[in-house]
Amino acid sequence: MNDLIILGAGPAGITATIYAARKKLNFLVITKDIGGQAAISADIENYTGYQYITGPDLAKKFKDHMEEFKMGVKEGEEVVGVEKINGTFKVKTDSETHESKTLIIATGAKPRTLNVPGEKKFKNRGVTYCATCDAPLFANMDVAVIGGGNSALDATLQLMKIANRIFLININPSFRGDKVMIEKVEKSDKVVTLHNAKTLEILGDKMVTGIKLEKDGEQKILNVQGVFVEIGYVANSDLVANLVELNKRGEVVVDEHCKTNVPGIFAAGDVSNAPYKQIVVAAGDGAKAALSAYEYLSRLG
Amino acid sequence: MNDLIILGAGPAGITATIYAARKKLNFLVITKDIGGQAAISADIENYTGYQYITGPDLAKKFKDHMEEFKMGVKEGEEVVGVEKINGTFKVKTDSETHESKTLIIATGAKPRTLNVPGEKKFKNRGVTYCATCDAPLFANMDVAVIGGGNSALDATLQLMKIANRIFLININPSFRGDKVMIEKVEKSDKVVTLHNAKTLEILGDKMVTGIKLEKDGEQKILNVQGVFVEIGYVANSDLVANLVELNKRGEVVVDEHCKTNVPGIFAAGDVSNAPYKQIVVAAGDGAKAALSAYEYLSRLG
Repeated sequence: MNDLIILGAGPAGITATIYAARKKLNFLVITKDIGGQAAISADIENYTGYQYITGPDLAKKFKDHMEEFKMGVKEGEEVVGVEKINGTFKVKTDSETHESKTLIIATGAKPRTLNVPGEKKFKNRGVTYCATCDAPLFANMDVAVIGGGNSALDATLQLMKIANRIFLININPSFRGDKVMIEKVEKSDKVVTLHNAKTLEILGDKMVTGIKLEKDGEQKILNVQGVFVEIGYVANSDLVANLVELNKRGEVVVDEHCKTNVPGIFAAGDVSNAPYKQIVVAAGDGAKAALSAYEYLSRLG
Repeated sequence: MNDLIILGAGPAGITATIYAARKKLNFLVITKDIGGQAAISADIENYTGYQYITGPDLAKKFKDHMEEFKMGVKEGEEVVGVEKINGTFKVKTDSETHESKTLIIATGAKPRTLNVPGEKKFKNRGVTYCATCDAPLFANMDVAVIGGGNSALDATLQLMKIANRIFLININPSFRGDKVMIEKVEKSDKVVTLHNAKTLEILGDKMVTGIKLEKDGEQKILNVQGVFVEIGYVANSDLVANLVELNKRGEVVVDEHCKTNVPGIFAAGDVSNAPYKQIVVAAGDGAKAALSAYEYLSRLG
């Protein structure tokens, strides 16, 4: 019987493993891959302590740090079910069933995608899903932001200080975001807003060169070097949807100790309802989750 | 007028500056020193991404990262007062007054000290205030833990897996901590508990060699290589005590967005009521505080 099973090994899961290992817990990490979304980020300039590092390099450093501690990492094992039976958590993978007294859910999230041609091909080659991470890379360029809510408005506000021109592509007839943000965006002469505009394709050669839209029944092409897809995230919470409370966005609800509503289950990182989806935030919350799990185990007797 | 003033430049404050700089806020950092408690830690093995780094080295990396962004850092300027006048925050230092629309309080905390001879001299040479940070450094050694609450019990539980023998020195007649933890400690044959025992002095040469106690009217000396002082922390919140809500421990109360009860004031790191006092937790919350301040400013219009 494990003290703890950690599901996922992005920044939250890896930090949880470091803390669990230092507490000498008997634990297991089960994960599809190591590094999570960090590993597929282009350039990271906001993980404190590293001025500039690529996503794969930071993921490698995280992985090395995790592997310094001797412990069981089940990489590539796919979790197919999680249950609580008589106070014990049973994590079923495609090859076996693991038992544990506690669980940390750190399975991350994935950006909601447009599902248009070119999107996959130009990901990290002009197509990005994180303005906070990547806006500074598009200084003085023309870019498109796709979306009509606060995320898209926020991305636009950030880009107004950095990019040359921003096309804000909203599929709906009006914005859904905060008025103050909308006013700021509408006041800027850097921003060209297109409502009722549907993105059909992302165009490019080696890097993005433009996007193809449909608006008012007509197709048009905009020349841009960057495309910020800001239509939301999808938490990877399917596996525990019947076990713990999720909010309406499908995120696992946690308190400030990273506890879920089920005693013994903790969550951290992008799968949780933490307000900002950032590497350093996920790492911090991963530490909280592991320390909370440790305290819970101490009190179990 | 600044958009933001950040008070303090430990892991929370530095991470807040990185995020504020990337959002192109017009801001100022006012701090006594750079690195905070991290800079005075001996060995750090739990900041994700660095398997092993000394406190001063990590603080240097944090400082370099912060300084990469052009911005005003007022290092060494002592803050003497913080006020809110007509919706504007005024931060008075020993040399001038700075104005800002928002504030991040990241002034950290300091461990409560015993105030006995030898304590200062052997700090980081056997005397430590953080079991989570330093317990692994005392493998197979004899150590003393000073305190009688959950922190001291937790330190003892951690050390039971690592150290050879633990003297648990409690000034009161019984423990104040959780029953389950007390039972575990009392069951261990590694732990020697001394209630009603007052620490008089920490002894040593280059490193700690022992402690001098008074118990039942008699003085005695215990030979130990490590002394874990676990009698609590003191949040550096004096400056804002009249401005924001503090909890009974004197910590600034924040929500999951690192907002205080005063609009426009945010807090992160050890000065806040965040449940764990860890570098990576402070860094994560510093990012949250800066992103919350940014959102607040966006909505100000």
